[in-house]
Amino acid sequence: MTRVNHQVRLAARPVGLPKESDWDYVEEPAPEPEDGQFLVELEYLSLDPAMRAWLNPGRSYVPPVEIGEVMRAGGIARVVESRHPDYAVGERVNGAFGVQRYAVSDGGGVVRVDTSVAEAPVHLGTLGISGLTAYFGLLDVGRPEPGQTVVVSAAAGSVGNVVGQIARIKGCRAVGIAGGEEKCRWLTDELGFDAAVDYKAGDARAQLREAAPDRIDVFFDNVGGEILEAGLSRLARGARVVISGAVSQYNATEPPPGPRNYMNLLVMRATMTGFVIFDYADRYREAATEIAGWLRSGELRSREHVVQGDIAQFPEVLLSLFRGENTGKLVLAL
Amino acid sequence: MTRVNHQVRLAARPVGLPKESDWDYVEEPAPEPEDGQFLVELEYLSLDPAMRAWLNPGRSYVPPVEIGEVMRAGGIARVVESRHPDYAVGERVNGAFGVQRYAVSDGGGVVRVDTSVAEAPVHLGTLGISGLTAYFGLLDVGRPEPGQTVVVSAAAGSVGNVVGQIARIKGCRAVGIAGGEEKCRWLTDELGFDAAVDYKAGDARAQLREAAPDRIDVFFDNVGGEILEAGLSRLARGARVVISGAVSQYNATEPPPGPRNYMNLLVMRATMTGFVIFDYADRYREAATEIAGWLRSGELRSREHVVQGDIAQFPEVLLSLFRGENTGKLVLAL
Repeated sequence: MTRVNHQVRLAARPVGLPKESDWDYVEEPAPEPEDGQFLVELEYLSLDPAMRAWLNPGRSYVPPVEIGEVMRAGGIARVVESRHPDYAVGERVNGAFGVQRYAVSDGGGVVRVDTSVAEAPVHLGTLGISGLTAYFGLLDVGRPEPGQTVVVSAAAGSVGNVVGQIARIKGCRAVGIAGGEEKCRWLTDELGFDAAVDYKAGDARAQLREAAPDRIDVFFDNVGGEILEAGLSRLARGARVVISGAVSQYNATEPPPGPRNYMNLLVMRATMTGFVIFDYADRYREAATEIAGWLRSGELRSREHVVQGDIAQFPEVLLSLFRGENTGKLVLAL
Repeated sequence: MTRVNHQVRLAARPVGLPKESDWDYVEEPAPEPEDGQFLVELEYLSLDPAMRAWLNPGRSYVPPVEIGEVMRAGGIARVVESRHPDYAVGERVNGAFGVQRYAVSDGGGVVRVDTSVAEAPVHLGTLGISGLTAYFGLLDVGRPEPGQTVVVSAAAGSVGNVVGQIARIKGCRAVGIAGGEEKCRWLTDELGFDAAVDYKAGDARAQLREAAPDRIDVFFDNVGGEILEAGLSRLARGARVVISGAVSQYNATEPPPGPRNYMNLLVMRATMTGFVIFDYADRYREAATEIAGWLRSGELRSREHVVQGDIAQFPEVLLSLFRGENTGKLVLAL
């Protein structure tokens, strides 16, 4: 039996917002695993804002995806052939297999997926890199104390919603900034955020004043631009600003202006710190165990925005992410 | 005997670069000390970039100087009348007496000046708030380790030159950014900086690459704007950016763009922290003792840029500060 691999490869470095033509759809025979390798068939692909940054040339926290290379992506897959002693056919695994139907792996960076804890797509979001980013960014970098105010931007996204929920679990006032009434209602009514700011409904700073009357102790930023400035304008003394992403900037053709009011860091004796989740790899298990416990107890809810489709649809689904169309983790189910 | 007080009072809130007419020169009878007070005659006035920020309305780390109020300034003065049990006529004291010839004080915020350690103007600079700012900003906020690279902007200023010298004393590579060949030569040839970047001599980023080949572990910023961006572009993994001031921005009429490349904080897992020296008041003595020791041993040199004049000249001397005309601490000797 010859398996046909479906792949999405980078065709051109996008300028500004990517176009579907920046990727090529390719079919070719699936690879054969060698000794010590196994072959997986992808079931779910993770779609992440950070993907945009991986398309830019030059140094970042990971090397860029090269032209002609299979697009980088995390995914959940099933082992369909194995010449590896530790992986059996039928097992489900999570790894950076790329945007393709089949991939070979030697097990490096791969973790088994336990679907008795939660369904597979949850392992890409709340139990995956998104949830881990929320966990370490909030607790290790932000270091909130009970009673403090935590504000998170892109709060209806896969990282942001978990940040707010963990803040609530830790006894903080949780405030989310999101675009649109529906997302905001989800945050407050279903996830237990104390307040939400709808930046599409006008003056975000005025809304933030009302939502964070005691100012902001931890500002967890996924957005950058004016939202970051709004957060900086409302810092409490000794605040921690956690830089997790800057989705408003990823598609800019010129470097957008930085935060004009960064000197509030001085006025408020505050700290702005960037972090990269991969640095916490040796503590993933500890965090995932705690998150799984919160999921089981119902203290934390997970939501996935699952789009059914095939590999070739990857570009259009990714573009929907930049239009903010997802609530919760965006996943392409193959 | 009636003493005549000479005063400089704020006349108008400057827009952009201050004009001399933003202050009024006033003469009036000197005040009389009441019980528990003493009268001082000012001998030296401290001129500081932060003065510009005190002229703006609105909340900052100190309240603004009000229209009609005597301009705020630190100074060295001699006690000329005393009804205070702890202060005798003839003693020299350091305090925020304002831009005036005579002031009364109850001793709050006042420290005695020991001119056997160093001449009076040094107590406004290297042994005063400038040196303390350098000390705590570098050692407590920046936390450099021996062998690391410390880069400081406005390095020929009263804070910056001490930052670089303490970095050198602590076994770091000390790099200063300053304007002009003469200032840069002073840093390397007289103060022992390992390298200097002359931002007026063209491509500061290229010079910085050469001056900091192992990248920057601590960037101590007094300037903001493009200089801060140059520093952010060259951070080492885990770097600390210390925000001490933003002299390039104080006279801007619009908030200047923030650092466009602040996301390098994420890429390099770096931290940007603002601080205000007044928070360290209970540790001033400890720091001043250590700085005085370095002065005595010759490990640290102090330079003051002393302008002779009278109270009425305060505005023009302050403006020379914003033109970068001083090397070391700018002091008006009355």
